[in-house]
Amino acid sequence: MTHRICGVDLGGTKIEAVVVDAEHKVRGKARIQTPTADGPGSVVEAIIEAITQAAADARVKPSELSGVGIGAPGAVDSETGVLTRAPNIPGFEQPYPLAETISKAVGCPVKLGNDVGVAVRGELELGAGRELQHFVGIWWGTGVGSGVVLNRKMWHGRGAAGELGHTVIQRGGLAEPSGMLGTMEAYAGRRNMETRAHAAVEAGRETNLFALMEQIGKKRLSSRVWQESLESGDELAAELVGEAIDAIAAAAANVVNILDVEAIILGGGLGSRFGQPVADRVAVAMQPYLFLPESSPPVMVAELGDLGGAIGASLLIGKQS
Amino acid sequence: MTHRICGVDLGGTKIEAVVVDAEHKVRGKARIQTPTADGPGSVVEAIIEAITQAAADARVKPSELSGVGIGAPGAVDSETGVLTRAPNIPGFEQPYPLAETISKAVGCPVKLGNDVGVAVRGELELGAGRELQHFVGIWWGTGVGSGVVLNRKMWHGRGAAGELGHTVIQRGGLAEPSGMLGTMEAYAGRRNMETRAHAAVEAGRETNLFALMEQIGKKRLSSRVWQESLESGDELAAELVGEAIDAIAAAAANVVNILDVEAIILGGGLGSRFGQPVADRVAVAMQPYLFLPESSPPVMVAELGDLGGAIGASLLIGKQS
Repeated sequence: MTHRICGVDLGGTKIEAVVVDAEHKVRGKARIQTPTADGPGSVVEAIIEAITQAAADARVKPSELSGVGIGAPGAVDSETGVLTRAPNIPGFEQPYPLAETISKAVGCPVKLGNDVGVAVRGELELGAGRELQHFVGIWWGTGVGSGVVLNRKMWHGRGAAGELGHTVIQRGGLAEPSGMLGTMEAYAGRRNMETRAHAAVEAGRETNLFALMEQIGKKRLSSRVWQESLESGDELAAELVGEAIDAIAAAAANVVNILDVEAIILGGGLGSRFGQPVADRVAVAMQPYLFLPESSPPVMVAELGDLGGAIGASLLIGKQS
Repeated sequence: MTHRICGVDLGGTKIEAVVVDAEHKVRGKARIQTPTADGPGSVVEAIIEAITQAAADARVKPSELSGVGIGAPGAVDSETGVLTRAPNIPGFEQPYPLAETISKAVGCPVKLGNDVGVAVRGELELGAGRELQHFVGIWWGTGVGSGVVLNRKMWHGRGAAGELGHTVIQRGGLAEPSGMLGTMEAYAGRRNMETRAHAAVEAGRETNLFALMEQIGKKRLSSRVWQESLESGDELAAELVGEAIDAIAAAAANVVNILDVEAIILGGGLGSRFGQPVADRVAVAMQPYLFLPESSPPVMVAELGDLGGAIGASLLIGKQS
């Protein structure tokens, strides 16, 4: 029987699904907007729809899949498949048995993992990290997630490792929504960058960020909006992206000082869109924060691109023997 | 034949040597002031003298030792036994074949390790970390060194891991002598605390720190001076120690956010002298910097005490079969 696995990347704005073969090659895909209605029901339906569409695109029935791996933002119990808490997904503020619910509907095994964790694992096994022994993945998007890979394994600690975005680089500095002050994410998370852009406009600064947002037809300052504004020479965009780069660089240098890893891999919505030019700026900005600047590790860009989260999620399902 | 190992802790102010038996029990010890004359010759002689005295105290000849392990501050090549650079030891600004030189003089094998690395390994195998799977040791002294233990092994990365003292917590903040700004050590290293105390006195602040230093007969604000000043209610000492605690807490919380380790072990001259009351203050100060304050790991005090560095160094010599 054909071996087909589905991987789903559940995001705050979209649900991305891929169906891959035994060699991890993408055979089918689908993308659906994440419903914003209250309650988990509509999100569950949308996930099932994305799986069904991706399976159809790969010419298999959902029930013929060897399994579905789902990467979800927030706290995940990978043993039980319960999405403990996902503040960015409407209706998932409370624990929800996501894997079990989807499994019953689709008719195949379902496993759940953290979205950044599975994306970093994707880079480890199939992407920029495939020849590295150790690295730190920094996923720069709405928030800034991270994954620590040591001796070619994800490091979990007591279960909650990888919160580089919430490390402090500026005591008493900017607040993030959680109330923590001066963390890397307070400067670099896209949501917080948008809050700062709003505040700047209210204070009288000029920018094309929000005009571009409307032109493109977005409700948020998406990665594309930031990229286009930056390329147009917008001063506020340049300033806020510059501050985000410095914050990411400080936190990345800290983790290099502590763990002396072989590389930093930059991914996520903003990281992947900005690509190597911005990764190079992060590398330069790391220099003053490194104890040994002469042995600064490379800052690489995630290779699996937009589908990386979904492809990484498919790795949650082991190959059948 | 009796199995006796010597461990040496080479410090900027003193050289501590112990001779231990196969069960790591201390059978002899010696302490010698670190010579301040230029050139490595006098320091090498002092190390040999410390080994000889500790061996005599344990009733063995130096040549009968199974080996000597030396923990040295600075960059160490543990393969070749070369002390690459030890800025705190007069005469060791250039690479020096320390293990080979001592081995020829003493007549037994000599191994070299980083001082904080061997002290943390001592805690891992014989001290506060003996039942932990993973922890970070923070050695609070003249500088602030650290050691990362993962799955009961020291983590070295590409060879230079463990520089938690040089991670940034306050971009653009206080300078440390290396020129790095706003690092934890800039606030918490004893040398930098002394610099700040001098500056405060020049700015008109009152303190008993320097009077106590002279009473005790020291040339530096030693750990004992800080402790006695703090206990006397000195306001400047309380303020600077408080700021050091907050800096250590911020960096410790960062490493917990990244690695989610089971514990922080606090050691070093100041850490060991201040003991559990200050470790408890570090734990409290970590709270606002933790992403998951409810699962804050314990902050423990190193158990091997003053001789921990020398005992840890003895572990560089494996047991003979």
